[in-house]
Amino acid sequence: MGSPRQLKLGAIIHGVGHGWGDWRHPDAVADASVNFRFYRQQAQLAEAGRFDFLFIADSLHIHEKSCPHYLNRFEPLTILSALATVTEHIGLVGTATVSYTEPFNLARQFASLDHISGGRAGWNVVTSWLSGTADNFGRPEHAPHDLRYRIAREHLNVVKGLWDSWEDDAFVRDKASGKFFDPDRLHALNHQGEFFSVKGPLNIARSPQGQPVIFQAGSSEEGRNFAAQNADAIFVNPESFDEALAYYRDIKTRTAQYGRDPQKLSILPGIRPIVGRDPAEVERRYRQAVDLVSIEDALVALGRPFNDHDFSRYPLDEPFPELGDIGRDSQQGESNHIKRVAREEGLSLREAALRFSRPNRAFVGTPEQIADTLQHWFEKGAADGFTIGSLLPDSLQSFTELVVPVLQARGLLRREYAGRTLRDNLGLDVPVNRYSARRLA
Amino acid sequence: MGSPRQLKLGAIIHGVGHGWGDWRHPDAVADASVNFRFYRQQAQLAEAGRFDFLFIADSLHIHEKSCPHYLNRFEPLTILSALATVTEHIGLVGTATVSYTEPFNLARQFASLDHISGGRAGWNVVTSWLSGTADNFGRPEHAPHDLRYRIAREHLNVVKGLWDSWEDDAFVRDKASGKFFDPDRLHALNHQGEFFSVKGPLNIARSPQGQPVIFQAGSSEEGRNFAAQNADAIFVNPESFDEALAYYRDIKTRTAQYGRDPQKLSILPGIRPIVGRDPAEVERRYRQAVDLVSIEDALVALGRPFNDHDFSRYPLDEPFPELGDIGRDSQQGESNHIKRVAREEGLSLREAALRFSRPNRAFVGTPEQIADTLQHWFEKGAADGFTIGSLLPDSLQSFTELVVPVLQARGLLRREYAGRTLRDNLGLDVPVNRYSARRLA
Ligand SMILES: Cc1cc2nc3c(=O)[nH]c(=O)nc-3n(C[C@H](O)[C@H](O)[C@H](O)COP(=O)(O)O)c2cc1C
Ligand SMILES: Cc1cc2nc3c(=O)[nH]c(=O)nc-3n(C[C@H](O)[C@H](O)[C@H](O)COP(=O)(O)O)c2cc1C
Repeated sequence: MGSPRQLKLGAIIHGVGHGWGDWRHPDAVADASVNFRFYRQQAQLAEAGRFDFLFIADSLHIHEKSCPHYLNRFEPLTILSALATVTEHIGLVGTATVSYTEPFNLARQFASLDHISGGRAGWNVVTSWLSGTADNFGRPEHAPHDLRYRIAREHLNVVKGLWDSWEDDAFVRDKASGKFFDPDRLHALNHQGEFFSVKGPLNIARSPQGQPVIFQAGSSEEGRNFAAQNADAIFVNPESFDEALAYYRDIKTRTAQYGRDPQKLSILPGIRPIVGRDPAEVERRYRQAVDLVSIEDALVALGRPFNDHDFSRYPLDEPFPELGDIGRDSQQGESNHIKRVAREEGLSLREAALRFSRPNRAFVGTPEQIADTLQHWFEKGAADGFTIGSLLPDSLQSFTELVVPVLQARGLLRREYAGRTLRDNLGLDVPVNRYSARRLA
Repeated sequence: MGSPRQLKLGAIIHGVGHGWGDWRHPDAVADASVNFRFYRQQAQLAEAGRFDFLFIADSLHIHEKSCPHYLNRFEPLTILSALATVTEHIGLVGTATVSYTEPFNLARQFASLDHISGGRAGWNVVTSWLSGTADNFGRPEHAPHDLRYRIAREHLNVVKGLWDSWEDDAFVRDKASGKFFDPDRLHALNHQGEFFSVKGPLNIARSPQGQPVIFQAGSSEEGRNFAAQNADAIFVNPESFDEALAYYRDIKTRTAQYGRDPQKLSILPGIRPIVGRDPAEVERRYRQAVDLVSIEDALVALGRPFNDHDFSRYPLDEPFPELGDIGRDSQQGESNHIKRVAREEGLSLREAALRFSRPNRAFVGTPEQIADTLQHWFEKGAADGFTIGSLLPDSLQSFTELVVPVLQARGLLRREYAGRTLRDNLGLDVPVNRYSARRLA
């Protein structure tokens, strides 16, 4: 049979917002980033909209110019665990870094979340792009970009190995014989690598999903290879259909080159739609979002992928400054992209800053228009789905109430959840335990 | 006025149990350690019994002989975050080790739990007593006992410093002026110490309790000093009233010597009561608990405070073996205690193993008898309250249903929660932010 391919949808729950001024909107919940009621309400909204997952981003270094949401926010594993109990079907995806965590602790917390949630955990694997993070962890320096991805490979392998410590049927729990577990189904990892040395076993059973789902968001050369080799789903922020298409093709090709089924890796562009019931409302809401972006804030935001580079020191209406290597060791893909666009289109600094901070017009429109765009990207091979971020306080609500029904009417989105786990939502198989596989081989 | 002093009560939620055979009881939930419904039910039971807090223990190293509960259990911060949403008043206390965590990550997760729960987080600070833990974290060796407490001091100081990164009134969130926070109320820690170097600031606001509550359980010389200096509450496992009395006096004296108010440090012996409605039920239930302890399991349990020492290699009915330094770098206080009791009372290995695994008869009885014992310890200065562990599947339920009403009738336990936070429950003040204090000084 084969069911028709449907869109995959994630909801980014991001407290007071992605930008610097979002919290100033009259309807904004100004303490949203540490307000549990807000998170619960957004999570339940996303579940009502039949999203596949919600996503909690993260980072570990702040300073006075940091985005308001970064300054003061819930930590992902704790808030996801809390949200697990107030939702039933939606996946619970959170960021954690390979650069400043112990694989043992991380493997365990995600496995624990997977148990608590009945199989809905996902890990967005990041390497951390702010060099100042090192100062919070007693490290003499933040590892350079490509080295971070080498660390990421080993870290992830260790974590996956630990998740397989117990085979699925290891816990016998036979009260009569007194056999609690089968020692033949328990395995120490005995990993000794370049960056980590971890014996194992992990002190938690294999989780309902076998292993939590792996998300990733690299867009550099190294990042793409890492994703193609390891990820179940990818976040990316393309500006246009053509960019998305090129990225999609590139990743799917790489995925096949790694011997994987490209259909098992979902590419999910991050978008921040602005929906209005009619053109007048669309325009009004678009204006609201634009008005939240000051040029000062846009400059700070522009600096983000460049390791929080200070752009306020350059003249605003001169050509975009020459930056040399700045950004290469931070968000490499995104900073290169900005440099290239600014050069190719001859943008001034002001123009570049506003261009990358203001809402992308491609996703501003009526419900039908937005649905058309999503459908176009989806059917023409530029996306397997989308990750929905917010620009206005009611963004998720308006998307869920207005766009979701259109997508459902077109058969592009489920009306009810079919399964119970995030893997079910995404159509991913439970990976076979490595030791069980050897036993069966 | 001053309200009469009341007992403080904690409930240890410990999955399939503290011993090796507990899960074999006919009514035991054999997968309790990873069963969220079980944890929710126990948490709600403890809250119905007006307990001050629930407690989730932890450790980070397992092997084939480990206690069944250790092999496969929820990780504390994730399960506590989940329990936060299904309870309202009860404190949420979890173990985390200073030996294998980054202060930045740990400070943040506990602060996040405190925000999620509306001020109910507590951290049981441990140093980890199993040397094999080092192998899971790429460390050449597990730090010896006294060094671990030195690390603990610095780790805790860093964590507390990070919790003060933001003064209480730092987040202004004034939409009109655009002032999200007051930079004068934001502080980098700039800690450079012997073991840790952490710049800060932490990326989460000061939490509802100011700082989560600090629990500790050291009983060695170093452990006692650490507790007296730093803890808000102490776990301890005395065998008898006299032992409890001596420990209580010792700790309160040390607390005063550190310049602290001894009343602000609660000493909470861990007990595992067995309650029956009448003497016949008491005896029947006591037998059930005794029958769950085999001599093989008792030997393994005996090894626990000695770094999981293998006692099966010694003859069972000879005098307790000479152990030299074994145990000194593990649970120093407890292993010394066992050695001393075995020597003073001339116990054989079998006798010692059974003595320390079987239920302590001091806490076996009818509701009135148990209440009498608790009241005696409490009023005679051997305890400020108790931490209740389980020996039988319905231990917490029978304690809550049978003993709690007697304690309430005697005015020893609240009938309703008076406040909203764990500090409120325990009668602890919110600590003044160190930077606000300096400003006011
Ligand atoms: C939708 C999306 C979400 C992201 N979330 C996070 C995050 O939570 N934490 C983080 O450190 N980086 C996050 N990133 C950034 C990536 O981890 C990565 O640094 C960035 O994509 C640059 O990768 P590159 O150096 O391979 O180009 C995110 C990126 C995208 C597109
Ligand atoms: C009630 C109680 C609970 C404890 N919980 C834990 C725990 O969760 N994790 C842990 O590693 N140690 C735990 N311990 C052990 C202590 O952390 C410590 O290792 C032990 O009391 C020995 O300390 P000492 O070496 O100072 O004597 C607990 C002890 C008691 C009495």
